[in-house]
Amino acid sequence: MNGLACKNPAMVQASDFAFSGLHIPGNTSNAVGSRVTPVSVTQIPGLNTLGISMVRIDYAPWGINSLHTHPRATEILIVIEGSLEVGFVTSNPENRHITKILKKGDVFVFPVGLIHYQRNIGYGNAVAIAALSSQNPGVITIANTIFGSKPDISTDLLAKAFQVDKSIVWQLQTKF
Amino acid sequence: MNGLACKNPAMVQASDFAFSGLHIPGNTSNAVGSRVTPVSVTQIPGLNTLGISMVRIDYAPWGINSLHTHPRATEILIVIEGSLEVGFVTSNPENRHITKILKKGDVFVFPVGLIHYQRNIGYGNAVAIAALSSQNPGVITIANTIFGSKPDISTDLLAKAFQVDKSIVWQLQTKF
Amino acid sequence: MNGLACKNPAMVQASDFAFSGLHIPGNTSNAVGSRVTPVSVTQIPGLNTLGISMVRIDYAPWGINSLHTHPRATEILIVIEGSLEVGFVTSNPENRHITKILKKGDVFVFPVGLIHYQRNIGYGNAVAIAALSSQNPGVITIANTIFGSKPDISTDLLAKAFQVDKSIVWQLQTKF
Amino acid sequence: MNGLACKNPAMVQASDFAFSGLHIPGNTSNAVGSRVTPVSVTQIPGLNTLGISMVRIDYAPWGINSLHTHPRATEILIVIEGSLEVGFVTSNPENRHITKILKKGDVFVFPVGLIHYQRNIGYGNAVAIAALSSQNPGVITIANTIFGSKPDISTDLLAKAFQVDKSIVWQLQTKF
Amino acid sequence: MNGLACKNPAMVQASDFAFSGLHIPGNTSNAVGSRVTPVSVTQIPGLNTLGISMVRIDYAPWGINSLHTHPRATEILIVIEGSLEVGFVTSNPENRHITKILKKGDVFVFPVGLIHYQRNIGYGNAVAIAALSSQNPGVITIANTIFGSKPDISTDLLAKAFQVDKSIVWQLQTKF
Amino acid sequence: MNGLACKNPAMVQASDFAFSGLHIPGNTSNAVGSRVTPVSVTQIPGLNTLGISMVRIDYAPWGINSLHTHPRATEILIVIEGSLEVGFVTSNPENRHITKILKKGDVFVFPVGLIHYQRNIGYGNAVAIAALSSQNPGVITIANTIFGSKPDISTDLLAKAFQVDKSIVWQLQTKF
Repeated sequence: MNGLACKNPAMVQASDFAFSGLHIPGNTSNAVGSRVTPVSVTQIPGLNTLGISMVRIDYAPWGINSLHTHPRATEILIVIEGSLEVGFVTSNPENRHITKILKKGDVFVFPVGLIHYQRNIGYGNAVAIAALSSQNPGVITIANTIFGSKPDISTDLLAKAFQVDKSIVWQLQTKF
Repeated sequence: MNGLACKNPAMVQASDFAFSGLHIPGNTSNAVGSRVTPVSVTQIPGLNTLGISMVRIDYAPWGINSLHTHPRATEILIVIEGSLEVGFVTSNPENRHITKILKKGDVFVFPVGLIHYQRNIGYGNAVAIAALSSQNPGVITIANTIFGSKPDISTDLLAKAFQVDKSIVWQLQTKF
Repeated sequence: MNGLACKNPAMVQASDFAFSGLHIPGNTSNAVGSRVTPVSVTQIPGLNTLGISMVRIDYAPWGINSLHTHPRATEILIVIEGSLEVGFVTSNPENRHITKILKKGDVFVFPVGLIHYQRNIGYGNAVAIAALSSQNPGVITIANTIFGSKPDISTDLLAKAFQVDKSIVWQLQTKF
Repeated sequence: MNGLACKNPAMVQASDFAFSGLHIPGNTSNAVGSRVTPVSVTQIPGLNTLGISMVRIDYAPWGINSLHTHPRATEILIVIEGSLEVGFVTSNPENRHITKILKKGDVFVFPVGLIHYQRNIGYGNAVAIAALSSQNPGVITIANTIFGSKPDISTDLLAKAFQVDKSIVWQLQTKF
Repeated sequence: MNGLACKNPAMVQASDFAFSGLHIPGNTSNAVGSRVTPVSVTQIPGLNTLGISMVRIDYAPWGINSLHTHPRATEILIVIEGSLEVGFVTSNPENRHITKILKKGDVFVFPVGLIHYQRNIGYGNAVAIAALSSQNPGVITIANTIFGSKPDISTDLLAKAFQVDKSIVWQLQTKF
Repeated sequence: MNGLACKNPAMVQASDFAFSGLHIPGNTSNAVGSRVTPVSVTQIPGLNTLGISMVRIDYAPWGINSLHTHPRATEILIVIEGSLEVGFVTSNPENRHITKILKKGDVFVFPVGLIHYQRNIGYGNAVAIAALSSQNPGVITIANTIFGSKPDISTDLLAKAFQVDKSIVWQLQTKF
């Protein structure tokens, strides 16, 4: 999937299986008020072929981890600090919105490939740790992908997809 | 994945492996000007566990098969009639828009979980046949999932995710 | 399975996911009156690891896509033009022959590893598009494999396997 | 793949993981002079989902384990007694015949889905033990499948597939 | 693997994907001074087939999460509180002991099936969150499995396996 | 899993799929009175990616194939000569000891990742052939891994894990 080769087992060291620094809060000074710090095969080479990885997510008050999917992984998340509103939407034709308020110590699952989000609904910062069922899960943030791809997707096409005027699409495209 | 049981091999019949009618044009009289007719494990029970399925896609002139993903499948598409603009966007952080004009007989691949679309750019109808690497691939149409889920995703959250006024989100939500 | 490496994601181009020319009829002037044009990982490098591929099959009147198996794939086929008799045989001990007449727009499934065939039973040419659940499915044509391998399988052994005189085996071996 | 449910772990017994009698020679008084005794999920329920099974193969002098494939398994074989000629044929277009003489204690591998055979080339009986990479590998004996399916494959079609007169096909069909 | 059926997608609820209480310290008043609180498919039915699960591990000062393996999962662990010595041993013939001191925010990987442990080397309690690459990973604690199975493994056999007097084996067997 | 590349199919030879010498008794003059002779991807390069391998196991009278696990494979074993007591222990919390006496021709299954053993309970030598569901299954002998790793696992930690005096741990550590 990623073209990485496995290291000779006789050469592996503890550092090939370790990563430091996930206790450090991520910088949430951005438009969505959240930050994801990944620990996947790029950070820990020993994860190659092992089918798992981890992230830390920081949320400023009312910050969101915006709508996104992981093309190759299910996610399981635990709230370490604060309160989160979380949700995912099931596939067509139902598009059911499955949502829940999570408090510290609550765990929630986002099934593989479904669009999901988290939002900090408390007064202070929130922190979550999540694990994903791939060493290289990938992330597709919907807004950036749809309205900020390089090069742009045609404005006409987006206007039809979202059934709005092109002026609204342009407005959205300037944001990403 | 789907809770379906396999039939006793001694009981299977040719009809368990067959489906008729994919030569019939789908009705494209709708907002996006396209129609997808699926042939997956629901239509052909013998596909269970076999990891493949098929669809026919019809496009009115300038009709689009709107931005969507398949959470459990890669797609390979062939143009049977007409000309299509197709594209997919790679995952974060690049969000590269890989796009191509396809003519009759051209084949294109949409990798698993990535957001993609097709658009009829010819004067007449267009038709494609596509195959997917799962007997139950699932479809997530982005617009319907984001702006038409049941119940709605919070307008506040969507306004922050797409960095626009809530009035624009409301406008989008009324369309789906 | 195939020793191919994956390309750096930052280097991929639309042409890595595309193939042109599957609208062109294959040349069926051969002993069986059919031609298979494959579009697998050899033709589309971007298919690597994605578990799907496609073929076009052309049939002259009464032409056959001779008895064969795919060692690594299930096949789903749609008739684009003409009428086909199709069939597969289940494994030992039943060896049930599951067969069906397909018309334009009919879809049929050949489960992984089973021996199957198609035959044009109409007066004109027939065309099918099929997809396979591997980027590198492999094809094993029974007659060529049994009677035309390089070097030959022993005539004695084949005579016992098919319970006929060696003269008949020799006759068969001269054909492949 | 097989519709079998897994037993409650608290209820499993040693007998769910065991089978007796593979030391008993199989009866080779038949047209091909060989007998395969399988030990798969049918004989050992505890094999379900575990992806492995075993067989004993007995060969009379010059007996063959006729040309066949396993649609869902690779096979690894060890000669316990006697000498065997073994072979498999690679897929199209090369159809290379990879063959070897095995003596007692020799091990050989038949890759998944490829057509293969063994033949006793010694003066006494031969015995092999083989393991397969599926709890339910399936067996497709080529001669029985092609010329002995129920109902028959059309004689016309077989005559074209093997490029011989229908009279030869009829002769072959009467044997299976 | 576990005989669990999947729920009808139209019937799933947020509670099928959630679990509460992983912020509550586990009771470490036991011989090893640690406690593992699992959140797998038993606690969250929606995890079925999704290939991931989570645990909280509490450690009293000098408490250990004793030597164990997961037969079906790789583990990725993050230290939430305190300091841990962690290690795993590679397979034969090297049996290399890969070990590291982890502080708060450090992440470490234990590859599938390898024997591993953690030990609290700080003065206060320690807490870790770990994720496993299976919805039903299983746990095999070496001491309990070897010296506390029901019924016992033969003392003679254990004496030979560990190359000590039977009196030492008896002593070990009384502890589990 | 192992970093091995696949050979060009046009270059493979029969010797890439073969191994000789598994009829030769292994030397059992060692502390446990047994010897395992493996035939995996190291011995047969053609096994790469094919998911199966084989071993011969020799047992002196009362010799044991000591407690061990395979991190990546289920094992199926057949007794070729002699009588064996075999067993495995299920995972926590039951740790059920599933055991059976096997005679010549008996077959037994050790599910993936579980700790298991065999012991020769007859007066003469015993021989078994086993197959494993991986081309590179790995072996973890419990005693060597726990008490003979390089470097040693801390004596303190082992004393707590096995709930015995450090003197006993030292004694065990000197043996491996």
